[in-house]
Amino acid sequence: MRAKTPPRARLDVDERRRQLVALGSQLFSARTYDEVSIDELARAAGISKGLLYHYFPTKRDFYVATVRHAAKDLLDRSFLPSDMNPIERLQGGLDAFLDYVSEHGTAYISLLRSGIGADPEVARIVDETREAFSMRLIEGLGVDAPGPLVRVALRGWVGFVEAATVDWLSSGQAAKRESLRAIFVEVLFSTVQIAAAAK
Amino acid sequence: MRAKTPPRARLDVDERRRQLVALGSQLFSARTYDEVSIDELARAAGISKGLLYHYFPTKRDFYVATVRHAAKDLLDRSFLPSDMNPIERLQGGLDAFLDYVSEHGTAYISLLRSGIGADPEVARIVDETREAFSMRLIEGLGVDAPGPLVRVALRGWVGFVEAATVDWLSSGQAAKRESLRAIFVEVLFSTVQIAAAAK
Repeated sequence: MRAKTPPRARLDVDERRRQLVALGSQLFSARTYDEVSIDELARAAGISKGLLYHYFPTKRDFYVATVRHAAKDLLDRSFLPSDMNPIERLQGGLDAFLDYVSEHGTAYISLLRSGIGADPEVARIVDETREAFSMRLIEGLGVDAPGPLVRVALRGWVGFVEAATVDWLSSGQAAKRESLRAIFVEVLFSTVQIAAAAK
Repeated sequence: MRAKTPPRARLDVDERRRQLVALGSQLFSARTYDEVSIDELARAAGISKGLLYHYFPTKRDFYVATVRHAAKDLLDRSFLPSDMNPIERLQGGLDAFLDYVSEHGTAYISLLRSGIGADPEVARIVDETREAFSMRLIEGLGVDAPGPLVRVALRGWVGFVEAATVDWLSSGQAAKRESLRAIFVEVLFSTVQIAAAAK
């Protein structure tokens, strides 16, 4: 059997995939899916297109892996110890979220923008991330067994944060960041009160 | 010059396009973009694939036309006279919105679900529709020259309604519809107050 791959590609497969995903996340952060070509991804990684296809059979597979990586990264970075003061924990989580999306603005906006047809895997990752945030809120707010109205309102609030953030990023951050964060916190408390009191 | 098109296709082009878009809206309402084929669209319209391509050069063009049609339809159906009582007008608009998305659940969820890459034209239609709703709110609430915080909060509220509605539709409408509508109204008033008071 002839070794067709260059020596630097002979890293452990998982480790190499991880490196490629980190690189892909960077490239997809600054530009959209359509703007980044497989040629460019391979060139940036210093490997052949063929070898890149060995790790990720299609450009879509590569993109999905970067979305999964970004979702995990966002959840990790916005996680704060559960014994913190609840308001500070919420504010800290929102700060981490706003940091993250400010760094990855293009990718974030592009992920949430409407396209032609949904992709089941990408949609699932995004939905699971929203669900994870909702679960954290339920836990952090100390809501026991929330009814369907509180649940739907929390998902609504996650949508509020997303939509306001996309608008804020697209407008060149016209509003002050601390004000935005303060609105998110106040709207959350008000929303939970409203939903908990609703019949 | 030989007439190659069958008689029933010799309708005025605009009228024929309108009929096709109405038909396409129906088909895309029940299933997603990927699930509906050009063959099926042509068959349902009783015309050849070639003739369908004459009106819409690609399946994407056809889909974009149905999204544009749906956006206009939604805006028209949820428009209520501006001399109505503001709360009843808001409630009536939300009712029309909830009717519309309940009828077109699959298309609505699929349009807002994340996919691979955004489509500039579809994203623009969706954004313009959100903007139109925000403008109606600004007008309806009697807010003069809203600052960046009120503006971003209204876009946030539109995102709240969208996200909660997608969750509600996906959960088989677990919460009562009137309760959902009441939450939307209360969260709107509370949000505007919070944003107007924020520094």
